[in-house]
Amino acid sequence: MVVLGVDPGSLHTGYGVIRYDGAVFHLLGCGVIRLHRRKSYFERIGEIYRELESVIEGYEPVRLVLETVFLNKNVQSALKLGQVRGAVIALAMNHRLELSEYAPREVKAAVTGRGAASKQQVAFMVTRMLQITGNPATHDVTDALGIALCDLLKTGVGSAAVPQPAFSSGSAGKKNWAQFVQSNPGMVVR
Amino acid sequence: MVVLGVDPGSLHTGYGVIRYDGAVFHLLGCGVIRLHRRKSYFERIGEIYRELESVIEGYEPVRLVLETVFLNKNVQSALKLGQVRGAVIALAMNHRLELSEYAPREVKAAVTGRGAASKQQVAFMVTRMLQITGNPATHDVTDALGIALCDLLKTGVGSAAVPQPAFSSGSAGKKNWAQFVQSNPGMVVR
Repeated sequence: MVVLGVDPGSLHTGYGVIRYDGAVFHLLGCGVIRLHRRKSYFERIGEIYRELESVIEGYEPVRLVLETVFLNKNVQSALKLGQVRGAVIALAMNHRLELSEYAPREVKAAVTGRGAASKQQVAFMVTRMLQITGNPATHDVTDALGIALCDLLKTGVGSAAVPQPAFSSGSAGKKNWAQFVQSNPGMVVR
Repeated sequence: MVVLGVDPGSLHTGYGVIRYDGAVFHLLGCGVIRLHRRKSYFERIGEIYRELESVIEGYEPVRLVLETVFLNKNVQSALKLGQVRGAVIALAMNHRLELSEYAPREVKAAVTGRGAASKQQVAFMVTRMLQITGNPATHDVTDALGIALCDLLKTGVGSAAVPQPAFSSGSAGKKNWAQFVQSNPGMVVR
């Protein structure tokens, strides 16, 4: 089961491809599509489509996963983000991928056990779950990987790989987060 | 020179294809892609892409033309419209079409001579310029045709076909509009 997580943005679009083999998550590929401000937004949208298309052709995921949009009050940025998302959605449909989306809180809760986790905490857990070593990736990448992992965990495909979080998600703060990670070394898939 | 005008919407997307042969505008094709509310928005976006792709493959336009978005205060509708637009833009880029866009006022001014013209007035002029007979099309279609005509007029390709409007665009009301149409029968391309 190969899943592609995408975190679209009008300037930076993160993506991550994860395979689950029944026991372990494997990072197949990830990256950020960085778009030049000087290019027209037409060109940028075309570039996102093409770059992600080559990712799909390279790794052949069965599903593309997005986060639902957290809408702030800025109408202009909602339009811009919508345009990038529309290109990604059309791409998925053109390649007959299943599409699913999760709220940001769901992604954080699935990956870290806490719906209000920070980007750093998501990055930390993603890095451990995928056994990534070396310099941490940017949050554009770890967010996209978190989205893909969330899908694998939520759909039950990868649920055997990670035990349920050992603490309640409501009141946990940074301290609990640290405690949780220390007391649950077995949570990391090896 | 064949141009495709598109008026995207999350439920109704109008399109119109016009060819200009150096003297006369020819309506090649037009229609509305109507999407069922019951379908997921993923499916709807995929459907708009596919339907417009078959229009492109059928008529081989060199350019796809859009209207710039008039942003109201609704963030949710800006996101939705953005998503449809993003799919249309990606389609144009994938088929290496030139993309251009015009403000709604520009389209109205180019087609009717008046930036504040109503949809009915745009429909009336589009119908005459393209020598369409029979029942008038819906405004989804006439708006899309107006966008395509605007592009042909603005880029100078079709500028010889239509004389300049005979009245100033600022103060003209419905009365002037009617007078203008009556006194300018030669404006219609035959």
